[in-house]
Amino acid sequence: MDHHRQIRRGYPEVIYCPGKTNEQIIKIFSALAAKGNNVLATRAEERVFNALAETGQFADVRYEKLARAIVLEQKKVEPSKSAIPIVTAGTADLPVAEEARVTAEIMGQRTEVICDVGVAGLHRLLSHVQKLQDANVIIVVAGMEGALASVVGGLVSCPVIAVPTSVGYGACFEGLSALLTMLNSCAAGVSVVNIDNGFSAAVTATLINRKIEQAGSK
Amino acid sequence: MDHHRQIRRGYPEVIYCPGKTNEQIIKIFSALAAKGNNVLATRAEERVFNALAETGQFADVRYEKLARAIVLEQKKVEPSKSAIPIVTAGTADLPVAEEARVTAEIMGQRTEVICDVGVAGLHRLLSHVQKLQDANVIIVVAGMEGALASVVGGLVSCPVIAVPTSVGYGACFEGLSALLTMLNSCAAGVSVVNIDNGFSAAVTATLINRKIEQAGSK
Amino acid sequence: MDHHRQIRRGYPEVIYCPGKTNEQIIKIFSALAAKGNNVLATRAEERVFNALAETGQFADVRYEKLARAIVLEQKKVEPSKSAIPIVTAGTADLPVAEEARVTAEIMGQRTEVICDVGVAGLHRLLSHVQKLQDANVIIVVAGMEGALASVVGGLVSCPVIAVPTSVGYGACFEGLSALLTMLNSCAAGVSVVNIDNGFSAAVTATLINRKIEQAGSK
Amino acid sequence: MDHHRQIRRGYPEVIYCPGKTNEQIIKIFSALAAKGNNVLATRAEERVFNALAETGQFADVRYEKLARAIVLEQKKVEPSKSAIPIVTAGTADLPVAEEARVTAEIMGQRTEVICDVGVAGLHRLLSHVQKLQDANVIIVVAGMEGALASVVGGLVSCPVIAVPTSVGYGACFEGLSALLTMLNSCAAGVSVVNIDNGFSAAVTATLINRKIEQAGSK
Amino acid sequence: MDHHRQIRRGYPEVIYCPGKTNEQIIKIFSALAAKGNNVLATRAEERVFNALAETGQFADVRYEKLARAIVLEQKKVEPSKSAIPIVTAGTADLPVAEEARVTAEIMGQRTEVICDVGVAGLHRLLSHVQKLQDANVIIVVAGMEGALASVVGGLVSCPVIAVPTSVGYGACFEGLSALLTMLNSCAAGVSVVNIDNGFSAAVTATLINRKIEQAGSK
Amino acid sequence: MDHHRQIRRGYPEVIYCPGKTNEQIIKIFSALAAKGNNVLATRAEERVFNALAETGQFADVRYEKLARAIVLEQKKVEPSKSAIPIVTAGTADLPVAEEARVTAEIMGQRTEVICDVGVAGLHRLLSHVQKLQDANVIIVVAGMEGALASVVGGLVSCPVIAVPTSVGYGACFEGLSALLTMLNSCAAGVSVVNIDNGFSAAVTATLINRKIEQAGSK
Amino acid sequence: MDHHRQIRRGYPEVIYCPGKTNEQIIKIFSALAAKGNNVLATRAEERVFNALAETGQFADVRYEKLARAIVLEQKKVEPSKSAIPIVTAGTADLPVAEEARVTAEIMGQRTEVICDVGVAGLHRLLSHVQKLQDANVIIVVAGMEGALASVVGGLVSCPVIAVPTSVGYGACFEGLSALLTMLNSCAAGVSVVNIDNGFSAAVTATLINRKIEQAGSK
Amino acid sequence: MDHHRQIRRGYPEVIYCPGKTNEQIIKIFSALAAKGNNVLATRAEERVFNALAETGQFADVRYEKLARAIVLEQKKVEPSKSAIPIVTAGTADLPVAEEARVTAEIMGQRTEVICDVGVAGLHRLLSHVQKLQDANVIIVVAGMEGALASVVGGLVSCPVIAVPTSVGYGACFEGLSALLTMLNSCAAGVSVVNIDNGFSAAVTATLINRKIEQAGSK
Repeated sequence: MDHHRQIRRGYPEVIYCPGKTNEQIIKIFSALAAKGNNVLATRAEERVFNALAETGQFADVRYEKLARAIVLEQKKVEPSKSAIPIVTAGTADLPVAEEARVTAEIMGQRTEVICDVGVAGLHRLLSHVQKLQDANVIIVVAGMEGALASVVGGLVSCPVIAVPTSVGYGACFEGLSALLTMLNSCAAGVSVVNIDNGFSAAVTATLINRKIEQAGSK
Repeated sequence: MDHHRQIRRGYPEVIYCPGKTNEQIIKIFSALAAKGNNVLATRAEERVFNALAETGQFADVRYEKLARAIVLEQKKVEPSKSAIPIVTAGTADLPVAEEARVTAEIMGQRTEVICDVGVAGLHRLLSHVQKLQDANVIIVVAGMEGALASVVGGLVSCPVIAVPTSVGYGACFEGLSALLTMLNSCAAGVSVVNIDNGFSAAVTATLINRKIEQAGSK
Repeated sequence: MDHHRQIRRGYPEVIYCPGKTNEQIIKIFSALAAKGNNVLATRAEERVFNALAETGQFADVRYEKLARAIVLEQKKVEPSKSAIPIVTAGTADLPVAEEARVTAEIMGQRTEVICDVGVAGLHRLLSHVQKLQDANVIIVVAGMEGALASVVGGLVSCPVIAVPTSVGYGACFEGLSALLTMLNSCAAGVSVVNIDNGFSAAVTATLINRKIEQAGSK
Repeated sequence: MDHHRQIRRGYPEVIYCPGKTNEQIIKIFSALAAKGNNVLATRAEERVFNALAETGQFADVRYEKLARAIVLEQKKVEPSKSAIPIVTAGTADLPVAEEARVTAEIMGQRTEVICDVGVAGLHRLLSHVQKLQDANVIIVVAGMEGALASVVGGLVSCPVIAVPTSVGYGACFEGLSALLTMLNSCAAGVSVVNIDNGFSAAVTATLINRKIEQAGSK
Repeated sequence: MDHHRQIRRGYPEVIYCPGKTNEQIIKIFSALAAKGNNVLATRAEERVFNALAETGQFADVRYEKLARAIVLEQKKVEPSKSAIPIVTAGTADLPVAEEARVTAEIMGQRTEVICDVGVAGLHRLLSHVQKLQDANVIIVVAGMEGALASVVGGLVSCPVIAVPTSVGYGACFEGLSALLTMLNSCAAGVSVVNIDNGFSAAVTATLINRKIEQAGSK
Repeated sequence: MDHHRQIRRGYPEVIYCPGKTNEQIIKIFSALAAKGNNVLATRAEERVFNALAETGQFADVRYEKLARAIVLEQKKVEPSKSAIPIVTAGTADLPVAEEARVTAEIMGQRTEVICDVGVAGLHRLLSHVQKLQDANVIIVVAGMEGALASVVGGLVSCPVIAVPTSVGYGACFEGLSALLTMLNSCAAGVSVVNIDNGFSAAVTATLINRKIEQAGSK
Repeated sequence: MDHHRQIRRGYPEVIYCPGKTNEQIIKIFSALAAKGNNVLATRAEERVFNALAETGQFADVRYEKLARAIVLEQKKVEPSKSAIPIVTAGTADLPVAEEARVTAEIMGQRTEVICDVGVAGLHRLLSHVQKLQDANVIIVVAGMEGALASVVGGLVSCPVIAVPTSVGYGACFEGLSALLTMLNSCAAGVSVVNIDNGFSAAVTATLINRKIEQAGSK
Repeated sequence: MDHHRQIRRGYPEVIYCPGKTNEQIIKIFSALAAKGNNVLATRAEERVFNALAETGQFADVRYEKLARAIVLEQKKVEPSKSAIPIVTAGTADLPVAEEARVTAEIMGQRTEVICDVGVAGLHRLLSHVQKLQDANVIIVVAGMEGALASVVGGLVSCPVIAVPTSVGYGACFEGLSALLTMLNSCAAGVSVVNIDNGFSAAVTATLINRKIEQAGSK
């Protein structure tokens, strides 16, 4: 059985859907759900969800359309005290931001999506500075020139997880431009995940936020 | 004045040396030292340190040879309770690991360098598992195929900061190979900094460890 | 006539299908089959097989769906004594692994596919160590970060044929990431074939296994 | 005779030095100077200047060390009314900024170099906003992530000429990172010249500023 | 709300359509139109325009088919005195040239498209030299080898905004060839925007032409 | 201690020298030699050997100049029956071929270097066909266009280990050209190691030849 | 009007079809045909030909399916004495070879297509050596590893025009592999055109063959 | 013995020097000279020539400094009737042009070097049009944007051999920019050799010119 990106104890079971048939996904999903855990299927097209829903096996399964994720919550996780800001440069970055949001939430994290605050209009970003400076960790999602991660990183003193997106055309080279920008960030405290990988950014941010809150609750 | 990679309140002043003359570096170093803060000069050749030492201005300045760093500690920072493991695939990755160590330590972090545990000899890595699983955050430094970050990421449930190095030849393409490997890691919780950027990895890890320990001490 | 990747005496005739019309493939297939040899058509879409089957010319032709291969066995080849392990990092790598399996088998090799043992979950791989150490040669199939080849190479003392796959997204760059990882492997004894080229890996592994078994039977 | 980058009527004669011997440069320089025009030799190492100076032919020739330029002003050009701001992200970008400054000045432009205002420290940039908004055209010089061009572009309504520099290491890939960032700028009105090409940025900015001032003086 | 490429005071509101649903675009378009400004939607497929037109809300909205742009002019902008030449190497470059034309025109610029004057047939280009030398600024649009920008740049003394296009195949690498050619132009005064980015070229050219004409009218 | 590329039981100890100081290499070398095994130091500059020899500790240590290898044979390994042909396209490929030869020989393999038989002069290659067809495994070393591996692969029915070299200039891109050629080989049975990696090719070929001879001797 | 790749006096008129509507192509085709010249439309899909044929305007227009070319011969050109060999590595390279054949023939050249003689089966190529050595100029068409150009170049003393094709997958990178191989050819006398550009190879070969035959007929 | 780039009957013997010691070169040179043929050593540093001259063996050997070539003419070849124009964009391209000139001349070709006629100053090129149109074949040598090949190709009806050079910086990427430009040339009849490969261009041009003149003399 394949659950490509498996997360550790207390976390949801995860299925990465591309390259699998509906039949394979349903089979894996059922097996994982049977353990009583929460299940998250990422990069799932809507027709995958429909096939899954039609089986009638999973009462509360839902489809997060923008995030392209299938979510089955069987165990409620207590929500984090501190919300993780998920900041995007433009509306076109939303699907990646949504994948991050859904992933973080099924892992018990509160989130706040701050959309369309790209660096060409600094005033929009600056109006959110207080919120960013209060966070334990921030996710920044940006395509094209990807400069948002550096600017955010320069404004705060918490770790920033940067997600380059493939949004753009021409010399954006499918996200390479934003990826290189983020890797070369002058702002210390910025680390980077794969292009369009909202899932991994959310897991990383969750690991950080959870460690902080667990330490605080001892 | 240029202090290229500036870090926030309570942190050392930092000078990135490449592209500056000895005279420029001494001038900036003096100005920063005069504020009474700790000062860290990265990527400094030994002849830069000698020029600085010869001025006789900085009593306790020292040169970290392998890390290529100049360190002036004027304020003692209380050491962290938890050490940050800095894991390397091979000896040739040590200069980058050392840059990470020196950076983390001047920011008050205890560290433990675990060297030469590349994936082609798993037993060496596995003998350190307990130490890795006890950490709040781990830095992994690897060149060539860079696979170590994924293997470590699969063994622990804390965030892993991966530093690709330019160690290798041929199709390593100056660190590109390790960079791509780490960005494509199947292990969730791995995020990546620039090739050979031990400094940035250390700052990120410090931000995380500090937040956790601060939360725990409230 | 084109049989793009031709193999030497005693081997099947091989047709590489992309870029040929159904008519061309049927014509070549018939000509090759008429010699009485086994015939293998690789990268064949199902509609190619259907067209071939509808001719009614080839009684025992079969379609290996996952491998996208058409197989006509007219001469039984005696099976090898030792099986070739074909190891994959994830389920999405299966089509390439299956192409390797079908190719090796039509050349008389026994195989054993070991699936979903990627490096982010080492325990799954380690449970197969004995089987790997008993082999004469191993095929490793992995996409994304492609680290599996190095880890397997470090565990055994036989040659490892590594097949990078195009599985992944973003900075996997259509398999480039896994290709570079495998080329930079620290584990000696690992050699690499083209991205997604299960066929070539199987031919190479067969040449090795056959030479070994022939030597042993003298 | 080679004067690689020739500029139109009323402009200095220009020699691009790399790949020429001292003898060749002196010969070309003399021939150009003999016409009575101003002469600019770019990318000239100091030893080239020394060889030129030793000939004793050119009374007022001077060497701009940081810009690596040799300048011979034989005709005074009336200075522009409006200064062109040349903005850099860090001190290491200064040689390119200086090449731009020297080039613009020999073409009669007043300039103002604003140094070390990279996006990781926004407050430094924002303290210069008024000056930027008053300009007819702005040159932005930045390496590493190159985000400064977008941020400046978003603050002003005049054209911005962006010069990526090769400052950085690792995934900066000799300036490719900054180049891609600038080409993908979300801020309209930003156009880009070659990596480290302060000369071309200055010529372009001069053409713009001159056209504007000429129109205003009619 | 997202209006990805926002331009400053007195300019149209702009929507970049890719990655947005019809519903999102209609919602944004309505909000922007309600302010009474001109609105430009770029990279809009015809079905987007049809959906917008069917709402019946926008009396004078029109679709520029070749430019793939939706235009709503609610405020007439006084046309510029001087026309901006938009020069293309071949017919296949027209969609990008048209995006530039539509953008410049909604910003009040007169334009003149000069088509199919690629460098392999110099006589066609040379017959337009006077027109080019009279311009304040020129836009050059070319794919394949992209040499037109250098040749035009060598003929005039005004700034040239070069737009590489993705026209071509093979080693054109989706416009990379033309992009590199233009960045390496020997002709001073040439600056470059992203591949296929007619919009940005037009905004830059407009900023320049407007500044010149404003200066002239004082 | 670092012995970067470690080989399994019965094999020499190996040190990869780049990035280590003389002192480090001597220390590691001594420790490995003390175990009584054979020791091989690869990519060693002559001054490293001189430093090692001057210690007077290692009576029989020798320097293989062309291969840039230091060899200490303390245990004689019985030579293989069958020689491994090491075939090069040109004389400039010899250092890589020599690294392969030295590595194979310390592992007990007989070898035969066949030099300067590149594909532009087929007759030279064809005069060696019999020798190639008698081998158990062949190493092909070629830079520039790297076509030799395919031609050899088409002539034999044993596995071919292809080593691209960085020999060439311009569009050879430091060995990338030969690497891609070899990965795309039409000849089945060709697998590839890293650019210039004669060491890894020799280990792989040795593993194959040894398995065959061991099987034959049972 | 656009006839993208225009050839000189006595040559056909040429239309490059991609990026043009049927209407545009018909309009251009008619205008060119009206001059009485031969007309060649390259990279034309069959539906373009059908639209053209349905106009009923062009009595003798024909569609070369494999070459994807529309041909209108209105003036017979006297055929060359010497045929140009067009050699391909595999059947999948035929469309490019056919484009070369159709182009050469409409320019009056006799051709001979020699198919499927890739270097992995040297005997097939060697059976054509005499024909190749008698030619004035040879076109070699090959994808994947592209080694055929070097081998042919080594066998003859006439110029070889090499056409890399995009045939292959994985590390063939859309023809980049064959392109680099051909550019790095050790065989002198090999020059290269763009990936898949059978048209340009044919024009070049025609220019050469014609010059030779014209010289011979004086 | 290695004579890397060997040319056919009646041609000089050729040695490609990089990667060979003085001793090796002298040995090969002597052996080749002993056959009584002309000998050409390319890419030879001056110290190689000095070592060769000091042997006193070769009375008439000479060093072509700019071309970095050693020439020994023992047999006079009758000069061609028609000269081959070798056209360069700038002075920095001269070493490559000179390598072409020396190579062509030792093969009996008359040449004419036309220097510094880059496309940014069309008038210089246009003053040579007649000479270009009279040629049988033309060599164009250009770095940076490499546009000269297309412009020349558009002016003539003979084959053009284009040599990209590594002249330039930044986004010229060591000659990649010029290489891509030339491969994408809109002008039919342009074929391309490796970056900086003046030798191969000269051989190709010689093969063409010789065939034409031989045909004419029959």
